[in-house]
Amino acid sequence: MATVAETAAVSRSTVSNVINAPHRVRPETRQRVEAVIAETGFRPLKAAQMLRTQRSHLIAVIIPPPGARLAEVHNVFLHALTQRAQEAGYRILLFTAVGDQEEIDAYDQLLNDYTLDAFVLVDTHTRDRRTAWLRRKSVPFVTFGRPWGSRTVHPWVDVDGAYGVRVATEHLIQAGHRRIAFIGWPAGNNSGDDRCSGWEQAHHAAGLPVLGPRIEIHGEDSESRAACARLLDAPEPPTAFVCVSDGIALGVWTEITSRGYTPGTLPPGNGTAVIGFDDSSIAAPIGLASVAQPIDEVADACVTALGKLLTPGKHTSRDHVLLEPRLVLRGSA
Amino acid sequence: MATVAETAAVSRSTVSNVINAPHRVRPETRQRVEAVIAETGFRPLKAAQMLRTQRSHLIAVIIPPPGARLAEVHNVFLHALTQRAQEAGYRILLFTAVGDQEEIDAYDQLLNDYTLDAFVLVDTHTRDRRTAWLRRKSVPFVTFGRPWGSRTVHPWVDVDGAYGVRVATEHLIQAGHRRIAFIGWPAGNNSGDDRCSGWEQAHHAAGLPVLGPRIEIHGEDSESRAACARLLDAPEPPTAFVCVSDGIALGVWTEITSRGYTPGTLPPGNGTAVIGFDDSSIAAPIGLASVAQPIDEVADACVTALGKLLTPGKHTSRDHVLLEPRLVLRGSA
Repeated sequence: MATVAETAAVSRSTVSNVINAPHRVRPETRQRVEAVIAETGFRPLKAAQMLRTQRSHLIAVIIPPPGARLAEVHNVFLHALTQRAQEAGYRILLFTAVGDQEEIDAYDQLLNDYTLDAFVLVDTHTRDRRTAWLRRKSVPFVTFGRPWGSRTVHPWVDVDGAYGVRVATEHLIQAGHRRIAFIGWPAGNNSGDDRCSGWEQAHHAAGLPVLGPRIEIHGEDSESRAACARLLDAPEPPTAFVCVSDGIALGVWTEITSRGYTPGTLPPGNGTAVIGFDDSSIAAPIGLASVAQPIDEVADACVTALGKLLTPGKHTSRDHVLLEPRLVLRGSA
Repeated sequence: MATVAETAAVSRSTVSNVINAPHRVRPETRQRVEAVIAETGFRPLKAAQMLRTQRSHLIAVIIPPPGARLAEVHNVFLHALTQRAQEAGYRILLFTAVGDQEEIDAYDQLLNDYTLDAFVLVDTHTRDRRTAWLRRKSVPFVTFGRPWGSRTVHPWVDVDGAYGVRVATEHLIQAGHRRIAFIGWPAGNNSGDDRCSGWEQAHHAAGLPVLGPRIEIHGEDSESRAACARLLDAPEPPTAFVCVSDGIALGVWTEITSRGYTPGTLPPGNGTAVIGFDDSSIAAPIGLASVAQPIDEVADACVTALGKLLTPGKHTSRDHVLLEPRLVLRGSA
């Protein structure tokens, strides 16, 4: 730092300002100091900088433990978020926890250990204690997931699942399907209920009756195969299946193909259509139509919201971003 | 810290030693100070501790950018590694990069910014410049992946892919298959070549001829469906397929089921067996037999090796751990 100050013919505190508070330095001086910094390869030791500025440029994000169901969409989000954050000068710090309380304990520990700048939360849900805790501690955070009825005000980014499933169901109705089943998660899962509502909306908008209640898959995705078999063996089987996830759609698709039905074609004949959700890595190889979440845009919006939160004087950002997913048509629909 | 020292009736430097160098403190004193620390809820600010001890308890790991092919096994590894590292008192810091040089540049930047304790590398390959660079800089690291001919000596953990594919192929031979194809990656991919060698070994050990060269899939996994179709339309089609990945096996499985063949049964009849590699999340739902990598054990061994590297006086660990994968049989074989 002394070398930079001497070479640029400024004081040490000016060099410090160029690094930590560039707006305080006149543009000409700033350019001169930056040129010298680039020339000398000087990089301030972040640990020392952290103590001075109380900024670590670290953003903490949860990753579930190995036993938990690995949602591919969260892994894709982590890839995208790491890249976007890195472009904006931040790094992602990982931690693992199960349940709100364990996660809050981890926040507490991490805040003590690393002077974190912010958190990115995933899997928001009703009665989410995490967001209230972070607000109380005045810790900046953004959630991938809307507040689902929580009154804690905070910036969030989410994908409109109901819209995606409505578009998928409308596509099937327009193709002539009149008996469209929805294979979902148990009622009470916020995202699952939201997606299911899109299936109902499409029927209401077309003036068509909804084919009974949603089918609820409680355990493994593969249970959807048996659920599909029961529906197909019923007196008036569905001609199309809209599924809350690609994992559940895979079970349905497996049952349909094992019966020699041709996915995607319409009755009469042996046609049965299937549409999944998430456009995961299995969808393209098996020709499964699916609803794709714009995860790159989600990560982008999260980092943009964080940028606002972490800009002095702007830390009251209440950005709410709801992005539209996209129906990807393939052989199965 | 002053409060802890006063309450425990010791000097500040004794409190510091209890935290940073407990072996220097007599057990009775240490217990007394630890009791006071627990009582007062005192936690040293890690940023300050980092400057004193030059230890951050941060381990950096790469995560590929979103555009790159997402190998599910790496995501599972990241989950397991985060958990194991956390249990051992470490946190994972993520970064993204493409290619050896960009990754080395990221190491350099991270080492300047965060006083990292160590790196965990994945995807080792021949002429790997990363390991040589880290050795030159005396930075502790462990690789998930063996050195593949590199002369840089370092601790590594890997899974014996050749063994896994040999066991899978032997299972098919014992079941009566004599025409077993291998659908792999292009020659030159270290892991892919290793797995392919297991297919050859099983034939040699049984005194059987190998069914032609491996089939190489250069682009998308889904290209394996067309490759499978070509083989099945040939005069003497294979009765079984061993695949280098589950993604490639999925394409094969899709082609087989679309022809009305029954996966897993033996000819005569329409039987065709398929075995994948990685036991990914698609395998169980579609009944795909696969070779499972013991990723929890890999993460465990990596953290154990790191623990040795980071223990003063033991930093010359050259642990080499080669773990055996496990054949998981399902309907397809």
